[in-house]
Amino acid sequence: MIRTLYRPKGGSPVLELSSEQFAEALRDKDGLLWVDFQGEPPEVCEPILLNTFGFHPLAVDDALQESHVPRVDDWGQYLYLVLPAIVLDNKDGVHVDSLELDAFLGGNYLVTHHDQPVASVDQVWQSYLRDQRHLEKYVDHLLYRLVDELAAGYMAVIEELDDDIEATQDEVFEKPTTDTLETIFMLKRGLIALRRILTPQREVLNKLARGDYAVIDSQDRVFFRDVYDHLVRMHDITESMRDLVGGAVDTYLSIINNRMNDIMKTLTVITTLFMPISFVASFFGMNFFGPVASLNDWTNTPAFLIMLGITIITPMVMLLWIHRRGWL
Amino acid sequence: MIRTLYRPKGGSPVLELSSEQFAEALRDKDGLLWVDFQGEPPEVCEPILLNTFGFHPLAVDDALQESHVPRVDDWGQYLYLVLPAIVLDNKDGVHVDSLELDAFLGGNYLVTHHDQPVASVDQVWQSYLRDQRHLEKYVDHLLYRLVDELAAGYMAVIEELDDDIEATQDEVFEKPTTDTLETIFMLKRGLIALRRILTPQREVLNKLARGDYAVIDSQDRVFFRDVYDHLVRMHDITESMRDLVGGAVDTYLSIINNRMNDIMKTLTVITTLFMPISFVASFFGMNFFGPVASLNDWTNTPAFLIMLGITIITPMVMLLWIHRRGWL
Amino acid sequence: MIRTLYRPKGGSPVLELSSEQFAEALRDKDGLLWVDFQGEPPEVCEPILLNTFGFHPLAVDDALQESHVPRVDDWGQYLYLVLPAIVLDNKDGVHVDSLELDAFLGGNYLVTHHDQPVASVDQVWQSYLRDQRHLEKYVDHLLYRLVDELAAGYMAVIEELDDDIEATQDEVFEKPTTDTLETIFMLKRGLIALRRILTPQREVLNKLARGDYAVIDSQDRVFFRDVYDHLVRMHDITESMRDLVGGAVDTYLSIINNRMNDIMKTLTVITTLFMPISFVASFFGMNFFGPVASLNDWTNTPAFLIMLGITIITPMVMLLWIHRRGWL
Amino acid sequence: MIRTLYRPKGGSPVLELSSEQFAEALRDKDGLLWVDFQGEPPEVCEPILLNTFGFHPLAVDDALQESHVPRVDDWGQYLYLVLPAIVLDNKDGVHVDSLELDAFLGGNYLVTHHDQPVASVDQVWQSYLRDQRHLEKYVDHLLYRLVDELAAGYMAVIEELDDDIEATQDEVFEKPTTDTLETIFMLKRGLIALRRILTPQREVLNKLARGDYAVIDSQDRVFFRDVYDHLVRMHDITESMRDLVGGAVDTYLSIINNRMNDIMKTLTVITTLFMPISFVASFFGMNFFGPVASLNDWTNTPAFLIMLGITIITPMVMLLWIHRRGWL
Amino acid sequence: MIRTLYRPKGGSPVLELSSEQFAEALRDKDGLLWVDFQGEPPEVCEPILLNTFGFHPLAVDDALQESHVPRVDDWGQYLYLVLPAIVLDNKDGVHVDSLELDAFLGGNYLVTHHDQPVASVDQVWQSYLRDQRHLEKYVDHLLYRLVDELAAGYMAVIEELDDDIEATQDEVFEKPTTDTLETIFMLKRGLIALRRILTPQREVLNKLARGDYAVIDSQDRVFFRDVYDHLVRMHDITESMRDLVGGAVDTYLSIINNRMNDIMKTLTVITTLFMPISFVASFFGMNFFGPVASLNDWTNTPAFLIMLGITIITPMVMLLWIHRRGWL
Repeated sequence: MIRTLYRPKGGSPVLELSSEQFAEALRDKDGLLWVDFQGEPPEVCEPILLNTFGFHPLAVDDALQESHVPRVDDWGQYLYLVLPAIVLDNKDGVHVDSLELDAFLGGNYLVTHHDQPVASVDQVWQSYLRDQRHLEKYVDHLLYRLVDELAAGYMAVIEELDDDIEATQDEVFEKPTTDTLETIFMLKRGLIALRRILTPQREVLNKLARGDYAVIDSQDRVFFRDVYDHLVRMHDITESMRDLVGGAVDTYLSIINNRMNDIMKTLTVITTLFMPISFVASFFGMNFFGPVASLNDWTNTPAFLIMLGITIITPMVMLLWIHRRGWL
Repeated sequence: MIRTLYRPKGGSPVLELSSEQFAEALRDKDGLLWVDFQGEPPEVCEPILLNTFGFHPLAVDDALQESHVPRVDDWGQYLYLVLPAIVLDNKDGVHVDSLELDAFLGGNYLVTHHDQPVASVDQVWQSYLRDQRHLEKYVDHLLYRLVDELAAGYMAVIEELDDDIEATQDEVFEKPTTDTLETIFMLKRGLIALRRILTPQREVLNKLARGDYAVIDSQDRVFFRDVYDHLVRMHDITESMRDLVGGAVDTYLSIINNRMNDIMKTLTVITTLFMPISFVASFFGMNFFGPVASLNDWTNTPAFLIMLGITIITPMVMLLWIHRRGWL
Repeated sequence: MIRTLYRPKGGSPVLELSSEQFAEALRDKDGLLWVDFQGEPPEVCEPILLNTFGFHPLAVDDALQESHVPRVDDWGQYLYLVLPAIVLDNKDGVHVDSLELDAFLGGNYLVTHHDQPVASVDQVWQSYLRDQRHLEKYVDHLLYRLVDELAAGYMAVIEELDDDIEATQDEVFEKPTTDTLETIFMLKRGLIALRRILTPQREVLNKLARGDYAVIDSQDRVFFRDVYDHLVRMHDITESMRDLVGGAVDTYLSIINNRMNDIMKTLTVITTLFMPISFVASFFGMNFFGPVASLNDWTNTPAFLIMLGITIITPMVMLLWIHRRGWL
Repeated sequence: MIRTLYRPKGGSPVLELSSEQFAEALRDKDGLLWVDFQGEPPEVCEPILLNTFGFHPLAVDDALQESHVPRVDDWGQYLYLVLPAIVLDNKDGVHVDSLELDAFLGGNYLVTHHDQPVASVDQVWQSYLRDQRHLEKYVDHLLYRLVDELAAGYMAVIEELDDDIEATQDEVFEKPTTDTLETIFMLKRGLIALRRILTPQREVLNKLARGDYAVIDSQDRVFFRDVYDHLVRMHDITESMRDLVGGAVDTYLSIINNRMNDIMKTLTVITTLFMPISFVASFFGMNFFGPVASLNDWTNTPAFLIMLGITIITPMVMLLWIHRRGWL
Repeated sequence: MIRTLYRPKGGSPVLELSSEQFAEALRDKDGLLWVDFQGEPPEVCEPILLNTFGFHPLAVDDALQESHVPRVDDWGQYLYLVLPAIVLDNKDGVHVDSLELDAFLGGNYLVTHHDQPVASVDQVWQSYLRDQRHLEKYVDHLLYRLVDELAAGYMAVIEELDDDIEATQDEVFEKPTTDTLETIFMLKRGLIALRRILTPQREVLNKLARGDYAVIDSQDRVFFRDVYDHLVRMHDITESMRDLVGGAVDTYLSIINNRMNDIMKTLTVITTLFMPISFVASFFGMNFFGPVASLNDWTNTPAFLIMLGITIITPMVMLLWIHRRGWL
């Protein structure tokens, strides 16, 4: 799908330009053109990017391949940016995935390219359709809106992960299982993936905010600075989360050992109580000694029934007690 | 609640200005105006901040939202600062919370904004009411008083956490339980939260001390430098505390294993002592051998009573001994 | 083997020059000469490198010795580069090996030297033979092709290691053995070896991209920048992989302890159930009590057979149950 | 106690000046004045420091409060320095304490202030009394002597800690107990405390050696450089010690587990040896089988005595053997 | 021992100068003088260094004391260098020791001072005696030869440690004992000691290569650069080795726990198999049941002999099986 949004100088917005009309729109230096390629095959995108817009082959190559690493390249007349979106895949554990969004920002146009639908792009697109005052601003403001939406998306993922971490920590203290470990490992992986987006993305925003680029209006730098500050904060939060996840494995190990301690205590107590008296009983069962008639009452039938009762009830009581301690 | 404190040029202080009088006070370049918004809804604050004081919409937006990350933004005519206070929530474990305090510092005014009451603000307010000589100084001295009080508040939290860490370490060595682990984890979380305030706050003070800003009088930079040094020290202390808390988990694990070692030794000793002789006793209980009359005295009634006594007393002695070793 | 590829100014390519013709080719400033030494002994290479090309003795020394550490030395008229290739040795575990590739880049020539065959060199050689348009470009483009192929080779190794790590993690969660530990250790070693190539290689590319060197055409710097970005990404990926491998050992330990916990529980339950009732049975086996005739039915032959059946079947059932739990 | 040492221009030293004479001595630009406040209450020190010497109130405040963090503040006419001494408190474990020493260095005077007696100060004082040639040098040489003595004091503490660490490591390998763990933890704490002095102290010396300050004679910078190098070395040594202490906890845990392994082996061997044969003995003790007369010799009185001997001696031998393995 | 080597301007070398002749040799600006002090007491060295060569007292002091930390001090007319040699002490474990070598490099002389014999110095000395062409070069080339030999000595130590690490890793996987742990700890210590030499030595070489010093000929800087590169590589190798040694402790712990797991499994299986049937046997041994005559064949003498055989052989088989599993 290729969709376009064009606001000519002083005119009202036009949708769905043909690719032939792009060249004309590009010549309108005070206009604003947004072209969004979604899921288009390279055969379609490449000629437009190379010929109509005249982008450098290396940049176009990067845009059509997936790299998922945020980055900004200054090609003089335009910037090439990789700005991944982050999504959380919740089925079968927690996975942090990134969707690549490539952008070319020129003086009067923005070209975005992505294989899957990206929620942030759609939101900005809708808001530009709804409220046409946005279209009066420079095109770098459109880029700001986009990175701001993307950052909001990152934050949502971070908050979800934070909840998962808290839940996992509670699980570690309450009923640690191998599944808990697997979740911890998955969260660790997720945070690593997150950091691999956030760190370079922060650097991209820093560059945009420092005003190194001709296509960024100096008045708009404060907006990029704002997103940069937001990303710095997110980066710090994920670092803290990594600390907590790292600590959770140590805690898990400590708690497992703690439990084993309890179990070993019970085993030792039981053994310590019964081994000596069992020996005493065995001792007097030896055939050195002949049975003496006087205590025959102890082995008559009623005694036998009592003994049988004890033999059947004791293990049951024991089982119940073990069950209560949560071992089975 | 909106409270105001205004000292006109050469005049005596005036309390409780209406928001219409703000504009007049702002024109008095040698006066000093402090406006404090506490718990006021955005609808009330926003128009005053935007229109009366003329702050940038992004800055006002940041002030009305909570971010809890210290920061200073230079908007030329004024500074926008986020200066969180730190409080310790002691009910149900140790939690480090931060209260956001936003401040706008201009050449002759300070605007503070916070949702909850902040102790440091109240203390400075009271001291300014009590001792009016404070009001004769520049407005940046008022900001210094505020950050100095906030830093004192951080220090109090750090000291409380330090005590908790020491108590927890003692607990690890004396009677480590899962609760101890949970406290350690909570302290770790608290230190991470603390560091996330201290590191950027230190940076804010560094910027104020370096004299990068027009609204900070160069003579007052030494005061901000003093607070900066204080924050550097606090940051170092929290880093050491993190080291100690991290080591505590390792120690916990080692001590738990040490205990298990003791328990296993006992189990092994008991088993090693009784298994061989129990076998011997069983051996002679086999029916290969007929009972021999000569030792019938060993199985008469008095012997039985003695045996019964041993059987009852031995487990009791064992239990007592186990109890003494602290296993039950 | 010494193979040469020479494209004279405006002429068509010539293969297999004698070493005497080298001097002539070098004088053709607009020509392009590539000499590749493969597995040649120092006695053969040294005189050519020293005398024909006039390289510094230290540089020639470095080229003839193996160091495996990427590096670029600027000798004014030419660059000396060490650019190792990475190969994965899969027999008997995973080993990351590096093959040293030395290169001298002058204004109109590239000299490569390696002891073993290097796949990337062969691929670039073939592509230059196949498509002679490559030969029209400057010689630094040839170097770019070479480092780009090498980087692609690194990526292949990284991906293979990544698969191994994922497989190992699954193994840790499913059936951790000492072999798993050994694989983890081997992967750790491999990542360390990889990093020791990637970090300096990245630095070499950074220097080439910054355009510090006279022999690199300024227009081609963007290509080296592209490879540099690729190496930065690879470096980040290996760092994440190190994190994951490091975490795998902790997880291994936790899972082993978890299993021991399960085993100990079973032992404790069995002991707890049978010790008390075994004591009771021993108690009534003592010779204080004479056998009573009334229960002789319990010890007649059919009862014996039932008892014998129980004695034989119980351990079998137990074994089966143990087997099901995966302990044997 | 306030003690003073004054060498007028070209004159001989004068001891014990009254505070009124200070002003006069300060005017003697080529003289040398050392005033040492030891354990004097703030009421005594403050007026002298503020009025006679004219130090800034913030600096005097810092001097009278304890902060224990090395630091140098340049107040133009004079330097304010915090230079803590380190002492080792050996009773009830190892504690690293610091004694605060504050110093003001002007062009012709040094003012030192400390609450407790500081050995380094006394040593320098004595050497200045003994050998008056010292007094002919500039006052910054006096400061050099002081920091040099302090650094020697740090080194002594480091060496003592190093010995403790080595002793503890041996203990870990020979007989690890919970006390060993507690010592390790204490050493860790000590090293953290040490580092918190050494790192900023090193920075102070670096600043003095770089010659940023007017009151430091450029010729004397080489002496401060020497102390700086010494501190750098000490810092490196403490870092290595931290590594070793950190490793000691891991080793402790490994050794404890190693021991448990040994104990478990014994338990398992004993159980494995006796359980099957005990079952066999029990089997033939069942009342399915009647006693057979032919083996009555096995249960006659001499056999009983032998059996009794075995029953008594076996546990004793076992105990002895257990004792030898160091378990009890 | 003081040995000297003097090559006058254009003349042939002279050995064994008296200390009086030093002054003359020093005046010969185009000559080359090497004085080597080995194991001479300070009383002998100090006057020569101070008076004949005119070195600064601080530098001479540093040379006569041992510090073992590589360093270069620029004293204008000459450089003072500390260049330790590293030796491996293999008796009673692996210890990395350093031998201090001090050097003064002037425009036309090199003074070396060391307490113990240093192999690298002797090798360079011999090569200068053997091949007098070396003497024609500048004196800084002599220093290069020296640091190059020292670096080769470091490399030998690193390779030996690397072999030890590999052997230890194999031991961890094959038969981990407390001795293995002790070796790991010793290797850790050795690597820490190594790093404390390599890091500053690398810095020294970097300074020499950068050409900051007047006494280093600019043409020779490339040689020092070569040694610097070698040291960088060695530093990287030792860092990797530290990683591996650190991982070895974790692996050790995991393997020990793995083994305990195996042992516990066996214990649990044995207990699980025999406890229930032992109970059954005890049950029918109670005196509730009278012996029944019909099965008396089971307890006749041949049966007894079989039983006795089982009782004796079973533990032997068990022991053999335990032995096979490597537990005893």
